[in-house]
Amino acid sequence: MDGEPRIEAWDRRVDWWLTGLAVLFLVAYAWQVLDPAIGEPGAIVLEAVVTGVWALFGLDYLVRISLAHDRWRFVRTHLLDLAILLLPMFRQLRALRVITVISVLNRQLRDDVRGRVVFYVVGTVALVGFVASLAVLDAERDAPDASITTFGDAVWWTLTTISTVGYGDRYPVTFEGRVVAGSLMVAGIALLGVVTASIASWFVENLRKAGERIGDELEDDIQDVEGRLGLVLAELRTISARLDALERDRHPS
Amino acid sequence: MDGEPRIEAWDRRVDWWLTGLAVLFLVAYAWQVLDPAIGEPGAIVLEAVVTGVWALFGLDYLVRISLAHDRWRFVRTHLLDLAILLLPMFRQLRALRVITVISVLNRQLRDDVRGRVVFYVVGTVALVGFVASLAVLDAERDAPDASITTFGDAVWWTLTTISTVGYGDRYPVTFEGRVVAGSLMVAGIALLGVVTASIASWFVENLRKAGERIGDELEDDIQDVEGRLGLVLAELRTISARLDALERDRHPS
Amino acid sequence: MDGEPRIEAWDRRVDWWLTGLAVLFLVAYAWQVLDPAIGEPGAIVLEAVVTGVWALFGLDYLVRISLAHDRWRFVRTHLLDLAILLLPMFRQLRALRVITVISVLNRQLRDDVRGRVVFYVVGTVALVGFVASLAVLDAERDAPDASITTFGDAVWWTLTTISTVGYGDRYPVTFEGRVVAGSLMVAGIALLGVVTASIASWFVENLRKAGERIGDELEDDIQDVEGRLGLVLAELRTISARLDALERDRHPS
Amino acid sequence: MDGEPRIEAWDRRVDWWLTGLAVLFLVAYAWQVLDPAIGEPGAIVLEAVVTGVWALFGLDYLVRISLAHDRWRFVRTHLLDLAILLLPMFRQLRALRVITVISVLNRQLRDDVRGRVVFYVVGTVALVGFVASLAVLDAERDAPDASITTFGDAVWWTLTTISTVGYGDRYPVTFEGRVVAGSLMVAGIALLGVVTASIASWFVENLRKAGERIGDELEDDIQDVEGRLGLVLAELRTISARLDALERDRHPS
Repeated sequence: MDGEPRIEAWDRRVDWWLTGLAVLFLVAYAWQVLDPAIGEPGAIVLEAVVTGVWALFGLDYLVRISLAHDRWRFVRTHLLDLAILLLPMFRQLRALRVITVISVLNRQLRDDVRGRVVFYVVGTVALVGFVASLAVLDAERDAPDASITTFGDAVWWTLTTISTVGYGDRYPVTFEGRVVAGSLMVAGIALLGVVTASIASWFVENLRKAGERIGDELEDDIQDVEGRLGLVLAELRTISARLDALERDRHPS
Repeated sequence: MDGEPRIEAWDRRVDWWLTGLAVLFLVAYAWQVLDPAIGEPGAIVLEAVVTGVWALFGLDYLVRISLAHDRWRFVRTHLLDLAILLLPMFRQLRALRVITVISVLNRQLRDDVRGRVVFYVVGTVALVGFVASLAVLDAERDAPDASITTFGDAVWWTLTTISTVGYGDRYPVTFEGRVVAGSLMVAGIALLGVVTASIASWFVENLRKAGERIGDELEDDIQDVEGRLGLVLAELRTISARLDALERDRHPS
Repeated sequence: MDGEPRIEAWDRRVDWWLTGLAVLFLVAYAWQVLDPAIGEPGAIVLEAVVTGVWALFGLDYLVRISLAHDRWRFVRTHLLDLAILLLPMFRQLRALRVITVISVLNRQLRDDVRGRVVFYVVGTVALVGFVASLAVLDAERDAPDASITTFGDAVWWTLTTISTVGYGDRYPVTFEGRVVAGSLMVAGIALLGVVTASIASWFVENLRKAGERIGDELEDDIQDVEGRLGLVLAELRTISARLDALERDRHPS
Repeated sequence: MDGEPRIEAWDRRVDWWLTGLAVLFLVAYAWQVLDPAIGEPGAIVLEAVVTGVWALFGLDYLVRISLAHDRWRFVRTHLLDLAILLLPMFRQLRALRVITVISVLNRQLRDDVRGRVVFYVVGTVALVGFVASLAVLDAERDAPDASITTFGDAVWWTLTTISTVGYGDRYPVTFEGRVVAGSLMVAGIALLGVVTASIASWFVENLRKAGERIGDELEDDIQDVEGRLGLVLAELRTISARLDALERDRHPS
């Protein structure tokens, strides 16, 4: 990453571990949110898994800093990663822990489906939508005046928000829920940007290649012409040499 | 389809029959939804038509599987078709039967208007909108707290949803109605994707052709040059032959 | 229009008259809507102006049919014009008369600002927005449960609808008002389509021209080459002729 | 600006001063809005700063008019600047003063990040969103029936409006607040236009350059061909000269 061979090697080694941890986190978090009546021992295990995975992601960040050539530069260019890691420390922003997971899973997804834009977009939207539904339900459930109190409500709210329809029959009322909503909106816009950029570069690439193929064909043709001109020149030099010989013949020195 | 000549032959043969069945389904379904006070015998006939057409679509799917070269591959690559067929078996998702009809009619529409993007888009939107209005009315009408209880309400709701305005004066409250709403939103986004892709490939095609035309003209010019070079070489060979003659003349062997 | 020289001549002759009538209609209609307490004589004059202009637009349509080479073809290809003219005959769709005006003014605007896309878009949006505000106010004002009862409300509603924000604090409740809302949404989407198409053709035009300029330059270069090859060929033929002369000289026939 | 060297010189000289004043205005305005219980002396100072900066912006406009070559033309082509300056004189449109600040800061931002579209867009959106939140809170806070009464509400409303989700749980009810909302919507659409235009010209630029590079390469090749043709012609002239010599030799004059 950023021409850092040691970080790249680390990334290659822990890539699948991080993906596995992200999936584990997601399962534990979903369980926690969807089964609030789980009881003492189960709740403690799930909380431990969720907090543990988050801590491991923090460790991964620290390792990558320590491997970086220029550590300050690494921190400066990875401020977003840092914010995603640190924000959930505030009790109110606990639900943002899932963003870390999204960013890890998204990296994996992007590497696997490079070039298959439709699949990538559908996968990302489904993942982001599922996670946002969990997070908003987690944030809203116990608020007074909350309109999002079941997972069905949360999925429906996510759907009306992603599509920007926004009927207003369900909407978050807590600070945490509004942060989730804001993240969802920003994610939607960012995704649109990624798709637009993909289409745009596919375009330019496609047309550039078509142009270069035409250019190459013409270049081949012109080189044929040059080859023939070489023959012409060789022929002319032979003729010149013969005329030389004729002349020398006539006036022997 | 997918290089399956036997399925393609079957498709060509049943194409118009399927379209006819889809229209029949749509008429019966619309009648069922718009005239709920129809009374015993009529209601039974309409339900028979609707269920019968759906069963025939299932039969068509089975025939296409049996004609496929590699049956597992066919099932794997047509999972969406399978889902559209099977989901309405759940009582709650009965309204989704119309999606099958949409997908059949859409195929027909697409084949007929290939290239006329505007017409295709307007037709698809009108069809999807009409069907969504029927389905949401069917799903919502009898729900307590329902805000969509007449066909006028349903059309108005469809309009505010497709345009993503979403005033929130009307919105589905049942699970079934929300699934219809979700399908409508996804259809809208998919349609936008189809239109964008059409414009994008029109672009690339147009510019590529313009580029190729320029390339062809230049190639013609270069071939003229090569033609002239051929004349030059022929002339040189004549000169060479004459010099040969001159030389032979001077030093007769 | 459509290769109909007589209709084109008629259009050129009545163009400014129609634009003037449309402006007159708009002023009278706005007055009618914004000053409902105008009293007997004024109200009758305004109604006469509005109905009169609408009748003149109908007359223009009839004249254009009578001038058409193939009248049935003209009617078939101008069904939208016909619908816009006839729909306001239904009492409920009275507010749609303004659409005729929009279509006339829009033609004028388009001819005047061809190429200045930004200006055209801003002008059309302002015009459509103003007219939609008038029409929705006209339709809603006297309805029970209406939330749009002043011109300020109507403009605010138009703004939230065009931007697809749709808070839902104001929305039409009458059939007529909903038709106005639907037209506004369709107009918004159509405008987006026009803008996209403009940008797309600007693109293709721009790149095609750039490609052709490059192609022309190369063609000039290749023609220079051909010109020089002509010189080469002429030179070679002279040389050949001289060698001929040399040979004839040596073996006089 | 517009080929006005004296105005450009003035702009370069006051650029940073204006940016500083805009930041000062923003701080004072934010303080004023966010701390309404500030008490007599502080409130007077803040109001003085806000009004003073606004007056200085007016002065800057007057200086630029006086420096213009053709003053009427300057006024005509800068009507928007004039409107932004004069509208806040109406008590009801006081909140629009911040638009002046936005336009000054935006100019600075645009000059600094030229080419970094993503950064520019994110910066502009954040700035516009912050300012709109302040302005709408300022306008709404004391209205009866207001739903936007805290800065948190205002930010949340801005978010739902920019994303066009528009739940309708918060919306402005005063004339001033609606003008702010309208400006925010127009700003959103304008920004979209700027982004689209940026992508479009990046496209055309990119493809044009690729085309020109291909054209240049081909031109180089053709010039090689012409170079060789020069050699061919030189050779032919040598041959011609020799034949001359041969002929002179045979028929000495």
